Amino acid sequence: MHIEGTVARRLDGTAVGEAIRASLRPRIEAFTAAAGRPPGLGIVLAGNDAGSEIYVRNKVKACHAIGIDVDLQRLPREASLGEVMAIVDRFNTSETYDGILVQSPLPAGMGRDAERQVFDAIDPAKDVDGFTPVNVGRLVQNRPALAPGTPSGVIALLDRAQIPIQGARAVVIGRSDIVGKPMAMLLLHRHATVTICHSRTADLPAVAATADILVAAIGRPGFVTREFVKPGATVIDIGATQVTDRDQIVSLFGADSPRLEVLARRGATQVGDVHPDVASVAGALTPSPGGVGPLTIAMLLSNTVRAAEMRRGA
Amino acid sequence: MHIEGTVARRLDGTAVGEAIRASLRPRIEAFTAAAGRPPGLGIVLAGNDAGSEIYVRNKVKACHAIGIDVDLQRLPREASLGEVMAIVDRFNTSETYDGILVQSPLPAGMGRDAERQVFDAIDPAKDVDGFTPVNVGRLVQNRPALAPGTPSGVIALLDRAQIPIQGARAVVIGRSDIVGKPMAMLLLHRHATVTICHSRTADLPAVAATADILVAAIGRPGFVTREFVKPGATVIDIGATQVTDRDQIVSLFGADSPRLEVLARRGATQVGDVHPDVASVAGALTPSPGGVGPLTIAMLLSNTVRAAEMRRGA
Repeated sequence: MHIEGTVARRLDGTAVGEAIRASLRPRIEAFTAAAGRPPGLGIVLAGNDAGSEIYVRNKVKACHAIGIDVDLQRLPREASLGEVMAIVDRFNTSETYDGILVQSPLPAGMGRDAERQVFDAIDPAKDVDGFTPVNVGRLVQNRPALAPGTPSGVIALLDRAQIPIQGARAVVIGRSDIVGKPMAMLLLHRHATVTICHSRTADLPAVAATADILVAAIGRPGFVTREFVKPGATVIDIGATQVTDRDQIVSLFGADSPRLEVLARRGATQVGDVHPDVASVAGALTPSPGGVGPLTIAMLLSNTVRAAEMRRGA
Repeated sequence: MHIEGTVARRLDGTAVGEAIRASLRPRIEAFTAAAGRPPGLGIVLAGNDAGSEIYVRNKVKACHAIGIDVDLQRLPREASLGEVMAIVDRFNTSETYDGILVQSPLPAGMGRDAERQVFDAIDPAKDVDGFTPVNVGRLVQNRPALAPGTPSGVIALLDRAQIPIQGARAVVIGRSDIVGKPMAMLLLHRHATVTICHSRTADLPAVAATADILVAAIGRPGFVTREFVKPGATVIDIGATQVTDRDQIVSLFGADSPRLEVLARRGATQVGDVHPDVASVAGALTPSPGGVGPLTIAMLLSNTVRAAEMRRGA
């Protein structure tokens, strides 16, 4: 039971991410010994979106640290969709690259439909982001599939924290293809009763407050306030908005928050969808940063290793 | 507003199915004139399951009545999985068959995984049941896809009955790949707030009673009783169990039900998941039979015409 005024248990994604990485090391060693090469991940980064630069740098670093080979292909902002496609084609037919990741967003000049076309072109066996229709379909059918990293990471976090999913009421706020929908499916397959909410949901706080497990994936800093949360519920914060407005930080975290120092130093600070006051009513809560972000990268590594093993028929 | 004691509006699937068929006729004529042949549906029926015989006969009759060509391939119960696969391969490469339907269930002797293997082998462009991972994935991504007939039919029924979906609370009881999950996705894409329930759901009646639109797809005759239904809610009954037990019919429908005469004459009568008492609390209700069944066949025709048009690049 949660007692009013206590602080929610902190679900540490960094620690769980490290545990996942540790479990991958022997598999990577075994694969490398058997295949005569390490697992390989091909990455396409087009343009120089600031967020993408950071994400890709972190992914490359994480791969190198664990023994996954990376081929990072950079293209200028003015590159054509055809150039991206040519790299994807080369990775598709490569013997040594088991996973393919095209960093989103692609430059706007490639056209509105560019990402969809590129993701569709990726060999499903190498689709470590789980964005191709075949992998989405297999995930929905509860069959072996390469599943998107963030929702898979949330399941791993809940399991390692021993938070029961079966029989729980789960509410997912957000219905994106890469987080909300696969999150709902993964929770459903673990026998939760799942509700998917979104911008058109009537009386959203009341619906959210039915949840034993509440997942917020909308990208609106501090949107999920205390009234959204049943006392003692587990709250998973997938939001990771870079906030640059000092007043917004002060209003959410107070005038003495250490985040102001981060803001001053870096020009932005990452803020989740969950309001800090929720810590006084939730039973368990992921921080942002330090929650699902590290898990997403850990699951990318896991998918790359899995794709490598599957391609060798293991 | 619903007034206690009134009888729910009857949502007539037969009439809506006829309206859908009427809208397909000019498309079939136009296709036939342009292609020099009618749209074609290849059907595989293996074994002689009594229900499958009826379903396939109704599908063939519906195709012929509207001008769709049918190639019905029958196999004996002892046939091998390879024989089914060979027919599917032939239909896949056929120029004149636009849709492929393998009637479920396949004979048990083909093995547990036989249906999955056969469905996976169907060309997604001809997958008029919407069972291939590619079509499931495209449906989930809210992209053009061949969607399973029953949930598509329910959306058509709600639209023609002018029952608002956007902003509604929808609860789907049942999480099958062919009804529950695609139903949830179609309602979500129409901006309902969707909850998926199943056998492990705690306090199922209370969760169901939050629904403005309640869809029952579990195959348990009369399971959804009054306590599951918010007064005035729309209730969609996808259950279609053939009941052979006279006592069960009497207990559900009373000793003077005309269904007893059907039972005596045919040896079974179709019963939905929704208890007859629900008619006194729901605002609108599909009967079973006469509700979603006729829509499922209408949507199969619609998918076949659509597949034919798409294959010609229309």
